[in-house]
Amino acid sequence: MSKTRPPVRTAVVEDAALVAQLLYDFNREFDEPTPSVDELAERVAGLIAGDETVMLLVNEKPDGLAVLRFRPALWSRGLECYLAELYVRPSARGRGLGRALMQATLQQARNRGADTMEIGVDEPDLVARHLYESMGFSNDSGGSGPVMFLYELDLHSRP
Amino acid sequence: MSKTRPPVRTAVVEDAALVAQLLYDFNREFDEPTPSVDELAERVAGLIAGDETVMLLVNEKPDGLAVLRFRPALWSRGLECYLAELYVRPSARGRGLGRALMQATLQQARNRGADTMEIGVDEPDLVARHLYESMGFSNDSGGSGPVMFLYELDLHSRP
Repeated sequence: MSKTRPPVRTAVVEDAALVAQLLYDFNREFDEPTPSVDELAERVAGLIAGDETVMLLVNEKPDGLAVLRFRPALWSRGLECYLAELYVRPSARGRGLGRALMQATLQQARNRGADTMEIGVDEPDLVARHLYESMGFSNDSGGSGPVMFLYELDLHSRP
Repeated sequence: MSKTRPPVRTAVVEDAALVAQLLYDFNREFDEPTPSVDELAERVAGLIAGDETVMLLVNEKPDGLAVLRFRPALWSRGLECYLAELYVRPSARGRGLGRALMQATLQQARNRGADTMEIGVDEPDLVARHLYESMGFSNDSGGSGPVMFLYELDLHSRP
């Protein structure tokens, strides 16, 4: 691991194509369906231009990204933050880039006035879970509560 | 269970105090910290007035509520919906009110153009999990994928 902290910056609209390529690669790597890079780039540009999404990029290339979504909280005065995506290119893993993105993510969330943060993560994704847990996240209220599941539904599927 | 479907309506700003009381009772029942009813009412009024939150009430009293949050999706053209809260008064349980709220929730989500919906739920909350599963939700991609956890962090806690 490098002794200097990997540089993380906030994506601007002009980064939309770079962000879209990373998102596309992310879903292709895990065999998930994905829109085309062009379609993603258009959507990403719109989200970056809006005020409830922040996208963070690590390294100049970039080598990874985090996607944060914000909204007014219900139970507290500030915002709640959802980490929608966290991705580091396969060739750039094992060098602390995910941790650098998470450190910047927490900084951004606090700076914008978020009170809480949530992340959905698959049970077998031990690398990500270890990273989140090392930063204080838990799926059982810090060991004192029940395990929390994330349920989902494709609203276009028919029962 | 009554043969007529319990009436579900969309809360308007004038319902903010009723909604706040239900939310307050919800958290008190489960020994969770909660703001005062007045503080919740002010926040609820603001959320209802905005365009990314829908609150549904069942029965005139009302006897229960659902809180839906919407935002533009990243992976699809429409919106994504998060069911933030679902609550039925203890005295009104066992009469299908939760199911009526969920049916109205799915209808609202589809009407507003949501492509997907997510819910966080505690592992021991079997009544809620059974209800969600009966409506097509899953925490493992319909049995074909890994279990999904929901991780959270209080951003005001210190590591």
